[in-house]
Parts: sequence; C-alpha cells; structure tokens
Amino acid sequence: MKPRLCQEDVWIQRWTQALRSHRSPGLRHGLGHDCAVLSAPSKKVDLVLKTDAVVEGIHFLRSTPAAWAGRKALARALSDLAAAGATPHAALVTAGCPDKKSAARLQSIYRGLAQAARRWCVAVVGGETVRTRQLLLSVSLLGTVPRGLSPHRGGARPGHLLFVTGSLGGSWPRRHLTFTPRLPEGQWLTRKKIPSAMMDLSDGLGADLPRLARMSKIGFQIHPAQLPLAPGANARQALSRGEDYELLFTVPKARAVQLRKAWPFSTRLTEIGFCLPSRAGFHAGGLPLQGYDHLR
Amino acid sequence: MKPRLCQEDVWIQRWTQALRSHRSPGLRHGLGHDCAVLSAPSKKVDLVLKTDAVVEGIHFLRSTPAAWAGRKALARALSDLAAAGATPHAALVTAGCPDKKSAARLQSIYRGLAQAARRWCVAVVGGETVRTRQLLLSVSLLGTVPRGLSPHRGGARPGHLLFVTGSLGGSWPRRHLTFTPRLPEGQWLTRKKIPSAMMDLSDGLGADLPRLARMSKIGFQIHPAQLPLAPGANARQALSRGEDYELLFTVPKARAVQLRKAWPFSTRLTEIGFCLPSRAGFHAGGLPLQGYDHLR
Repeated sequence: MKPRLCQEDVWIQRWTQALRSHRSPGLRHGLGHDCAVLSAPSKKVDLVLKTDAVVEGIHFLRSTPAAWAGRKALARALSDLAAAGATPHAALVTAGCPDKKSAARLQSIYRGLAQAARRWCVAVVGGETVRTRQLLLSVSLLGTVPRGLSPHRGGARPGHLLFVTGSLGGSWPRRHLTFTPRLPEGQWLTRKKIPSAMMDLSDGLGADLPRLARMSKIGFQIHPAQLPLAPGANARQALSRGEDYELLFTVPKARAVQLRKAWPFSTRLTEIGFCLPSRAGFHAGGLPLQGYDHLR
Repeated sequence: MKPRLCQEDVWIQRWTQALRSHRSPGLRHGLGHDCAVLSAPSKKVDLVLKTDAVVEGIHFLRSTPAAWAGRKALARALSDLAAAGATPHAALVTAGCPDKKSAARLQSIYRGLAQAARRWCVAVVGGETVRTRQLLLSVSLLGTVPRGLSPHRGGARPGHLLFVTGSLGGSWPRRHLTFTPRLPEGQWLTRKKIPSAMMDLSDGLGADLPRLARMSKIGFQIHPAQLPLAPGANARQALSRGEDYELLFTVPKARAVQLRKAWPFSTRLTEIGFCLPSRAGFHAGGLPLQGYDHLR
C-alpha cells in the first residue's frame, strides 16, 4: 500500500517548487527536512536574525496582486536587515492558510516571493504551514554583517545629525508593495562606520524616531520643512503614514561631511534634524509624533 | 513634547520583560532593535534553522493555561531541532494578537515561553507583533550541530531498522502541551552517528513515516504489535493521533546492537519495523497510514 499524499503535502510541493531555484552555497539540506542545516560562516562576521509577518487585510488586500504580496513579505524583512547593515543569506517562510481558495492564491504568492528571493540572493531553506482564519506569511531571515560593525538603535548621542534615505509619506497606494529595501545603502553605511544608530522606517518617522530616541536615551528636533516629501504628501503624512521602508540614521557631525561627499547612490539622502539631550524631549515643529500603531 | 508610548510599544514592553532574563553569551544586541546580532559560532559546527507556529483553536484552546500555550510554541520547534541533533541557541517570536483581551493573555503566554526558554537555554533575541483574527505564535530557532553530522529525512536505506523514542498515541488531552522535546536523545544519537535518517513525529507516525520514506526513496514495514503504545491508546491511534513529539529514526543493522547496548536514557527506545525497497511500498499490518492533515 502506498497512500496518496495528504492535502498539506500536495500544497507544500506546489508552493515550494518555485522556491527551489536558488540554493545557498553553504546549504547542506533545506526544504522537506525537519530543519535547514547550513555551514557556519567565517568568524569575521556576526549573524543577523530577523522575523517579520504580513497579514491579508492589513499589509496587503484580497485585491493585491498575489506576487506583490509575496514580494512584500520578503522585502519588509530585508529592509530590517538593511538597517543592520547585513547581507541576507537564508529565509524560512511560514504560511497561514484559511481555505482552498487561499491555498491556490498562496501558490502565486510564493512565486512572487521566490522571484524576490532570487533578486536579493536569499535562499528559502525551510518553512511551515498552519491553518489560520486569515492568509498570512511570516518570514525569518538569517544574514551576516562584518563583525562588530552592525549599527543598532542605541548609539545616537546629543549633537548627532538625523538623516533619512529616499522620500517619506508616499507608501500608498502602491509603493508599500513595490519598494526596494535599502540593502546596498545600509551595507555601505555600515562598512564606512558612518551611522551611530540606524533603523528602518516601517511605522512612520513619527512612531519610529521616538523608538530610536528612547533606545539611545536622547531627545530630538526635526525640521518639518526639510523632510523629503513623496509626491503629493505633506509633512504631517511624512511623519504618520508609515511603510516608507527607508533608512533613518544618526551621524556624528564630524562624519557628516564625509557622508555627503562620498554617498555613491542615486538614492536621495536628506538631513532632517538633530539629536538633543533626553531632557529636551521630542520636537517636530508642532506636528504630532505618531505613526501606525498595530494594537491601537 | 514627549508623547506616550503607542499601545503596541506598551504591550511589547510588558510581553518581553519576562524574556530578557536569559541572554545568549554571543548576543551583541537583540530585543528592541531592528535585528538581533550574534557573534558567529566556530566553523566546527553547522547552523540549524527552524520555524514553527501555534494557533489558538488548533494547537491550543482558549481554555488552555496560557503558560502551557507559550511553552508549547517553543517546545514544538525544539522538537525539530532535536531531530536534527542540534543544540538550540536563539529564538525569534512573532505574536499575532486579535484584541486587548488576547494582548493580556499574551503576557502570560510569554511568561510560559520565557520559562521554557530558560529551561532549554534558548535566548529570545527578537520578534514581531501583528494584528490577526486569531491568537497565534510563530517561533524561529537558531541552533548548531557538529559539522556535517546532522541527520535528515533522506538517508534511510532498505534493510535499515525503524526506531522510535517514548510512546505513541497519548498526546491528548494533556501531553501535547507538556511534552519534553528529545534534545539530549537527538544530540547523543547524532554525535554517535547512529541514525541514517531522523525526524520528529508531529503529525503522527502514519503521516510522518511516509514523508521520511519518500525523501529516502524507500518502502517500509511496521509491526503494529511492536508499537510502544501510550496508556489507553491502540495501534490505530498510535499511527494517526499526532503530536507525539518523539524521534523516529532509521539505523543500519550493524549499528543497532551498539544503539541498544549504549542507550543511556530512561526514555523508552523501541524497534518498530524496517525499511524496504521503494517498490515494496508502505505496510503497517493493514492499519491505515494517515495522520493529521493541516489543510484537509
């Protein structure tokens, strides 16, 4: 007797077919096994871990092209790796699937995810399927960064200057699906040891900058007139809309000259304010400091 | 102006308080930053990655004690690392939260998860929160295994013997929440190079053994009378109930003698059958070969 594959195994075969095309060089075994096993990297690097999820109805809609939803699931997590100055290597993907219709849609979602994985040289090495009431995708990434160099949210000091890449407030209706994670920019900044602190903007500058400020125990002053606005956005929207997926980073004044001179990317680079002592508080020229709150 | 924390940040602070007690020795920065950064391990090991999710209504119920739900979320993923012979190091936790009541319950769930993380020496180094319609937890693990030694599902050959740890069919109503992942057993088997293939039993022997057989391109014969039954379970239930979280592994005959003689654990060890050539098919003494199907 050789029974037919169970429904779960049939779908997993279909979904993961698209994912098998890019193999990580150090991968010993991946998809289809209990765990993914990879050879350890050189001791000259640190490991970087990140997990991120997208949920239908929140991060994408039923009407969103499936391939874009898959692309976004990966690109969101890559944006965090960019903020850590990391090079991505391997991904694990968990799919939550409510019904047969969603299972079919997941096949196209995985195709978009696989295409994005090829573009950014990420090997999808494992995953998991669960039954949920909403379609959702959770992506975990493993990357590497030169040892000891990864910037984080806690290194900003009073007097350091605030910079952002790209423009803010223009994520809807389309850019939140088609944005490009700032991986080369984050890697370059990290190797040049320019940022004292760095993060990516996912919930909006008005929510994210206060997080960086709290971790660094600083205050700040934003100049609303200097914010790089996306076409059609105003300063209030640039603070609150979220899903910009740009890099926000702080730079000691002495290094800011080097940064402006050596910046090798066509990506816009804008100084938007500066860091203050903690007791001075948070200032944005009278604009409200709030962004997207997942649990409001 | 220094605005109050947004609801999401308030809850994350509460949830993660319990998680900060165990720090990984190689951790550079974790919770609260965009990514977790850890120093790379020795080149003498391979990295092991796994992700797994639990969903309220499927893997635990609204009536399940919250701490047990949190424990299970971690222990399920640890069971997969056990099957890879790995030692766990770091975890990322994604919580899906539908409402304020669930946010409060998540605090107790995180406490259970933190207690389990301390017990099994796992550092929770990062995570993510999303709004979902059901309470759910997705856990990703990073572990290590001696280089080149991790067993997988593809190494079984005709003639190899089939073994399981513990007993089968007794997961409900309680053991699926309180089971102990077979980490020392999996690590010992791996270091001794005993298994030709290994996996953990999560969907039931009747669903999982065919997966191992397909990856190894073998058939098999199970002896129903030899199955180690949990109290009150019959052979049919031992094949189909799922959530045993025991190790299933295959052993070349020559190594089986060493295995039986040297097995240093109080955990039960049972030979339940043997591997056949692929063309011989799957045999379980007439019992149906099926387990839990997540997408049926």
